[in-house]
Amino acid sequence: MNKWLKFLYLPVFLVFTLGKAQEKLTIGEKQNLFSKVLNENREVWVHLPKTYHDATINPANYPVIYLLDGEINFEYYTGLTDFIARTPYADIPECIVVGIKNTERTRDLTPTKSQKKSPVNPAVTLFADSGESENFVKFLQDELKPFIRKNYRTQEYSVLVGHSFGGLFAVNTLLTHPDYFNAYVANDPSLWWDHKIMITKTKDYLEKNKKFPAGKSLYVSQADNEEQQKNWNSDMTQAIEEFKEIVEKNGSLNYKHGFFKGETHGTVSYPGNYEALKFIFNGFRTNIKQFAKNPELLEEDYKRLSEKTGAEFTPSEAYLNTIIKFMKSNDFKESETYFINLKNKLYPTMK
Amino acid sequence: MNKWLKFLYLPVFLVFTLGKAQEKLTIGEKQNLFSKVLNENREVWVHLPKTYHDATINPANYPVIYLLDGEINFEYYTGLTDFIARTPYADIPECIVVGIKNTERTRDLTPTKSQKKSPVNPAVTLFADSGESENFVKFLQDELKPFIRKNYRTQEYSVLVGHSFGGLFAVNTLLTHPDYFNAYVANDPSLWWDHKIMITKTKDYLEKNKKFPAGKSLYVSQADNEEQQKNWNSDMTQAIEEFKEIVEKNGSLNYKHGFFKGETHGTVSYPGNYEALKFIFNGFRTNIKQFAKNPELLEEDYKRLSEKTGAEFTPSEAYLNTIIKFMKSNDFKESETYFINLKNKLYPTMK
Repeated sequence: MNKWLKFLYLPVFLVFTLGKAQEKLTIGEKQNLFSKVLNENREVWVHLPKTYHDATINPANYPVIYLLDGEINFEYYTGLTDFIARTPYADIPECIVVGIKNTERTRDLTPTKSQKKSPVNPAVTLFADSGESENFVKFLQDELKPFIRKNYRTQEYSVLVGHSFGGLFAVNTLLTHPDYFNAYVANDPSLWWDHKIMITKTKDYLEKNKKFPAGKSLYVSQADNEEQQKNWNSDMTQAIEEFKEIVEKNGSLNYKHGFFKGETHGTVSYPGNYEALKFIFNGFRTNIKQFAKNPELLEEDYKRLSEKTGAEFTPSEAYLNTIIKFMKSNDFKESETYFINLKNKLYPTMK
Repeated sequence: MNKWLKFLYLPVFLVFTLGKAQEKLTIGEKQNLFSKVLNENREVWVHLPKTYHDATINPANYPVIYLLDGEINFEYYTGLTDFIARTPYADIPECIVVGIKNTERTRDLTPTKSQKKSPVNPAVTLFADSGESENFVKFLQDELKPFIRKNYRTQEYSVLVGHSFGGLFAVNTLLTHPDYFNAYVANDPSLWWDHKIMITKTKDYLEKNKKFPAGKSLYVSQADNEEQQKNWNSDMTQAIEEFKEIVEKNGSLNYKHGFFKGETHGTVSYPGNYEALKFIFNGFRTNIKQFAKNPELLEEDYKRLSEKTGAEFTPSEAYLNTIIKFMKSNDFKESETYFINLKNKLYPTMK
């Protein structure tokens, strides 16, 4: 074979293969960053919303959802955020989702060192590597968030989502660093951890601060796991309910507790994360039909949401385009003009 | 530039770019097939379950879920099937999901030609191209299913999932071709279509056949849309409830109706599809802990499910490996041997 042809063979073959391959459906990309805090490499999975690369609108910024146990939850969760952020009846804004893959899950998600004999085999000690969540939250705040901010167009609104130990971590972060995230989601959280230390910490927090900071939200889901009552997690349900009582009695947190009949510890995150998003962004959904007669309702709705959350939410250019199209196709001329003007005001650099 | 170098430039650059690109997270692949029945090209999105390419087990076959309105539902749906098919506490078997992208949605999903004036603008006639679902179901049965069967390892168990007009299509397919699928899911189905023709067809079907065929399942979800009551879809709720009454009274169908408080027509598919899967595969979940004392329970569970569904379900090799690992790590030697023997029997070609 001619030496030039030999040299060409590999790349040409590659191009040919690429041309033949089925087009893949992608939902995100893997990113790697080295954490100095944890002294290890961390892999995160990043999902961008539908309009992120839409060339017909100005580049927009998006809230960010930090999702623990990324490897288990990322697929349905990113499908969920896209599904309920569809206009015209979106329940939530379009969001960037950052799924965090585990390395040493117990180490990262538990706030204290606490051990337990395995209920199945007492020779085994569980959770020997627990208790370093303070390091992990430092990684999130000082390394991961700046990394995401630098590489993607983010809005200053973030949500932390966890399940089981991840839910424990979310509650602990709310108590120790309430300013780090705007909203916290804890699915069937392991509040039984270390003799219910979260209950003690919650009581201490409220004694010291009297109330939770304004504008923060917490959603807690609880599974209906009869099995749980019978095994070593018997204090799980009890601890969640104790926590619920303390927080509801205090009343200063934008808090919702959801009990899921028939759901187990392993499945409750699917419905729990849905209810959590609807709760956190309650007030986001607007009614396009009402805008025909009362166009100013749109800004009023967003103003109310911004006040509630303490963050700034404005109608997206994509949504304004949907509204303008609706008004035009139904011949609501005055409203159409109103929303064209609003769009020009909010997005002066027309595309 | 040397002419050889010039020629090389493009492919070498491509290889370089590929090397630098972030690794993408994929959930499926696009497939195209030309439909002679519909005389057009159709695009479908195919999702393969986690173990499909697992080289440590024998190649397995999987049930297939045909999902209408693929472009809207594919992401969360495929995330859902993977999420609840995780061992050891899987609620459903791992499934292949085929999302079907629309071309002429109204044409394909409606069973009769029926028109309506637009409630917003009476000058516009809606649904002028309706009434060709018989063609579309022929495409599914005679073209798409053989295509999927030929290109993927499928088990002879299939589910049809639709929403709105897609739900209407699912119910109509059950009535006209009950043998085409094993289970049918209709999320907030448009049973109001053409003066509630589905109600008439259901009554006719039952008068002629007395009862539904054995082993078939139907799950219907219903949204709680107050808005719906006020607009042109006012007969939607009424038609769904009328259908429910007829089917429940007859009692011969494996049928469940779920009402979703607070859900709208646009969101009900997310929880509806979850409840539907749990209903269809009710009995699939087995309890690994019980197998330590009663290993024969596993086959009994699968036998019961197979009888209920009229299809053959056997424990997957992946699940047997999970069980064997559990027995080994907890020193349940007799059970471990039992399941190793069962695995050898079911999967004689050891990997």
